[in-house]
Order: sequence, then C-alpha cells, then structure tokens
Amino acid sequence: MKLTILGCYSATPRTFTNPTSQVLEIRNHLFLIDCGEGTQVQLRKYKVKFSRIKHIFISHLHGDHFFGLPGLISTFRLLGRESELHIYGPKGIKEAITLFLKLGDSWTNYPLIFHELNAKDSELVFEDEQVSVHTIPLEHRVYTNGFLFKEKPYPRKLNIDAVEEHEIDRSQFNNIKNGASGVTENGVSISNADLTLDPPKPKSYAFCSDTIYNETIVPIIANADMLYHESTFLETESKLCKKTKHSTAKQAALIAQKADVGGLILGHYSTRYKSIDLFKEEALEVFPNVELADDGKSFTI
Amino acid sequence: MKLTILGCYSATPRTFTNPTSQVLEIRNHLFLIDCGEGTQVQLRKYKVKFSRIKHIFISHLHGDHFFGLPGLISTFRLLGRESELHIYGPKGIKEAITLFLKLGDSWTNYPLIFHELNAKDSELVFEDEQVSVHTIPLEHRVYTNGFLFKEKPYPRKLNIDAVEEHEIDRSQFNNIKNGASGVTENGVSISNADLTLDPPKPKSYAFCSDTIYNETIVPIIANADMLYHESTFLETESKLCKKTKHSTAKQAALIAQKADVGGLILGHYSTRYKSIDLFKEEALEVFPNVELADDGKSFTI
Repeated sequence: MKLTILGCYSATPRTFTNPTSQVLEIRNHLFLIDCGEGTQVQLRKYKVKFSRIKHIFISHLHGDHFFGLPGLISTFRLLGRESELHIYGPKGIKEAITLFLKLGDSWTNYPLIFHELNAKDSELVFEDEQVSVHTIPLEHRVYTNGFLFKEKPYPRKLNIDAVEEHEIDRSQFNNIKNGASGVTENGVSISNADLTLDPPKPKSYAFCSDTIYNETIVPIIANADMLYHESTFLETESKLCKKTKHSTAKQAALIAQKADVGGLILGHYSTRYKSIDLFKEEALEVFPNVELADDGKSFTI
Repeated sequence: MKLTILGCYSATPRTFTNPTSQVLEIRNHLFLIDCGEGTQVQLRKYKVKFSRIKHIFISHLHGDHFFGLPGLISTFRLLGRESELHIYGPKGIKEAITLFLKLGDSWTNYPLIFHELNAKDSELVFEDEQVSVHTIPLEHRVYTNGFLFKEKPYPRKLNIDAVEEHEIDRSQFNNIKNGASGVTENGVSISNADLTLDPPKPKSYAFCSDTIYNETIVPIIANADMLYHESTFLETESKLCKKTKHSTAKQAALIAQKADVGGLILGHYSTRYKSIDLFKEEALEVFPNVELADDGKSFTI
C-alpha cells in the first residue's frame, strides 16, 4: 500500500500548501480520498495516473475537502474518460455535483455513480476480492466519515522447494494457494501446511479527518497498520477544539495509542503555527511512531 | 486602469497554467472577472489585496470560469470579511453557490449579494460616480456575457497658472473642476475654459470570453481602449469553432478591427498548441496592436 499526500493543510489553499486530498494505492486500486480545491493540479504535479482513479471517497462537504471535485469530474470528461467513476460521500453530494454540471450543460460522457452516505454506524461501502472499505463515523460540525481501507488476506504462498520435492503437478498450484492439500503422482495427500508458506499479512489504513477527539472510533480502527488522524491544533489551542470540532496532536496520539495502530500520520494542520514539527513533538509524548503528512510526501504502509 | 491576468488558458488547470480569471483595477475599484479553480491561490501569488474585491463578474457557468468561486467565497469568510460582496453572473449562480454553502453549513458572515443575469441585450449592471459596467451578450454553448468596464469622465483639471493669475479664491476650485466659471475678487467672471485644462480621457475595457465570432458585439465595444477577446483556436482548427462556439485568433482580430479598439489582448488558448506566439502572429495579420495574455501578466490601459 502506498499513500501519497496531495494536500494536508486545513482551511484555505495557499501558494505553498493545499487542502486535504490523498491518493491510496492498494492492490490494483487507486483510491482518491477527499478532493480540496486544486486537487487535479496536485495529481498532475505528482504524476498520478488520473485515469486509474475509479473510486473517490469524500469525508464531508466542507470546501477544503471537496471543492476540487466538480473540476476533477469535468477534467475527466475533457480527457475522454469512458470508465465508471464512483463517488462515495455524504448525502447531498449528488445534488451539488449534478447542479454544477447542469449549469454548465456539461454532463459527463462516462458513468458517474454516486453512493450517498447517511448512516450513523460504520458500514461497508466498497468491497471486491482484494479490498474492503468501511466508513468510520466521525464527529465534526457537519456529517462526516473517515474511511478504513483493508486488504483482504493474500492467498498462501507456494513453498517451491516442497512442491518440487513432492513432485506436485502444476495444475494443483492455484488450489493449493487457496488452502487445498496436494496430491502426489502416487496418490499420496500432502497437507497444505507442508506445501505453502504464510503470505504477507494484509494491511489496513484508517483515514480520520475531520473530527473532534472521539474514542468511539477506537474499536473500528483497532490495530490498523497506519492511521491518519487530523491534528488541526496543538494543546495550547485545545479550547478551540470544542467549538470547531477538531483535534489536537496529543488527542490524535491518544486515539492511536488506544487503537494500538502501527503508526500515526498527522495532518490537517492549522496554518497558525510556524512549524509542523511542533505537532510531531506533541504527539510523540503519547505515541512512539508518529509521521508528519506534508504535500507531496508518500508513505509505504 | 490596470489589468492583471490570473489565468487565461482554456479547459483544465495544469501545474503551470490557470483557467480564466482577471483582476481589473479601475478608479477606486478592484473588480474580479471570472473565477476558475485556483483563483484564490493566484490572487495570493500575485499579492492582490483580497479584501478590496467587492464585485465579482462571472461570464458563464463553465467550470474553467467559475469553479473557483465557492472556495473564494469561503475564504473571505475565514479571513473575517465583513463588507458586502456582489456577484454578477448568469441565472443559477445563486442556487449553486447557496447549495455549496448550505451543504457545508458554512454561511458567510458578510453580506453576499447576487445579481443574476438573463437579459439577451446589453444592460447596465453596475454604476457609481466613477465607473459603469455593461454586459456584452456573447454567443457560447451556455448563456454568456462579456463585460464592458468604463470610466466616467474625470473632472476638469485646474490650470494652476491661470487661477493664480486671476487670483481666484480656493473656495471656488471644486466648482470650477466640475465646469463652473470663476469670479475674481473684483467680481469679474472668467470662463471655465480659461481656468481649466482637459482632464485625462476616460478609459474603457471590454472583456469578451467565451464566444464564437459574433459581429453583433461590435457596436457595444466600439472604440474601447482595450479589448480582451478569446482566441481558443488558430485558423487551422477553425472548423472546431462552430461546434465548440469559440473563436480563432484571426476572428478576435477581425472583431478588434471592426470595433476600432485601441488594443487587443488574446487569451483562453487551447493547450494543444506548442507556443502562444502563434496566436499573436495570426492576429497581427489583421490588426496591428495585439498583446498576449499570460498568467501573472499585467497591462496598463
């Protein structure tokens, strides 16, 4: 899994920072997560292959998380897209995008499919043979979901030495990878455990932005390999969190600690601070494995 | 009058070019004309004082001319704006912007006033003591207006030598600037012409984008000091103009010639050409005073 941060600053775009957007490469998918203004330019800047994006997940309908979506949808049309585009986001997103396209008499020439969300509990919103995506209900000023991206278990790995030793026929390999026993030329059954090795552990990534400190998400994101949790403020401004429904770096770290995740990526920084290193320092006091998101930065999970 | 081009390329924003937006400084006003995605970042990049913008003119509701508007309106709120913001644009713009703000529960805390346009003939849409703005009905795929910005006549300039020679009292100066005669201490009337000099000629700027070649605009923009006319294509692609309702550089120059304008600025270039110099070359064959718009470039009119 590879995560690329296209933008990770809160509020208004500036010449040198961008609002929230991320690209997650997971198995054969390229998922776009949130789409602040300028996302399509960031996609170009970091040479992401536009056409591979088939699923866009929008956390909430604040401008810094979705004002880039009408433009990206239009650009796909201008680039001659033909394949389906699926948009997952809060109820209302379909009406908003549809109105913008209607006003410009600019309907897409590819299928644009909206999956509007309004559930209060975590729900499965996407699934195929390799990946699942669940919502993570967050508490913000408007209806908001994070998203939990999980790889499904890989097939078991063939133990080449063992299958050669037992002279197992190649025609059985796929079944063995999926858990079957093998049979030798002489009809002797060999257990799957003797013919295979453990596959890589499937990974998971939890995206949580924007949200106030909210422990109810802990069971949903428990043991995720990587957690992105917003940290708009430092503890010195913690009283702003209640009104704005944002979190501090320390609170993000507390959630990471309680959920026992593999690592924590901080982001959605208020632009009032002179260095984002301050967020890392604060979080490290609570949780050991902290990374800082920054525009253009990539993480291998 | 000073015109700053924030973006002047057609279709999709790229890392090095921006969709249409311009800032016009005219008398005491700073007008924003069109607002493609990323305009607020361009405003920052070229250090335009945001807060001075009180009037935004939107030609039409294609994305490359207005998808930056929701973000700019939101940013004004975040920056604590209190003064009125007037938006002039096609019918439907109010519903679109209002829906976006409603979905984010992000109403402005300053007065946001929409002036929706649907007239087919040129009309006065803004006027004060110093400036007037008329629409220029254009012919494009959707309802579109250009805008004609005109300075009102300046007051006459006091001829300092003459008023001193005639010992005209200072209390009469304002009246004289506005056309009155002067009266000496001895009660002798001195004609206004003898006490004043001609003021600078009021200037005008016509913005015409997007449009197919359309001679009906010629009487409206006749004798404008500067004309911005879209030139999406070169003559080699002229057959695309009919379907897309755009113009070639040559057609823009023909309009400039027929309207006898002071100068022509080309823009809204298709990104298919390797150099925008080709547009200038083509237009110069028809009209002598041609300039090329480019992102960040300023023109004094």
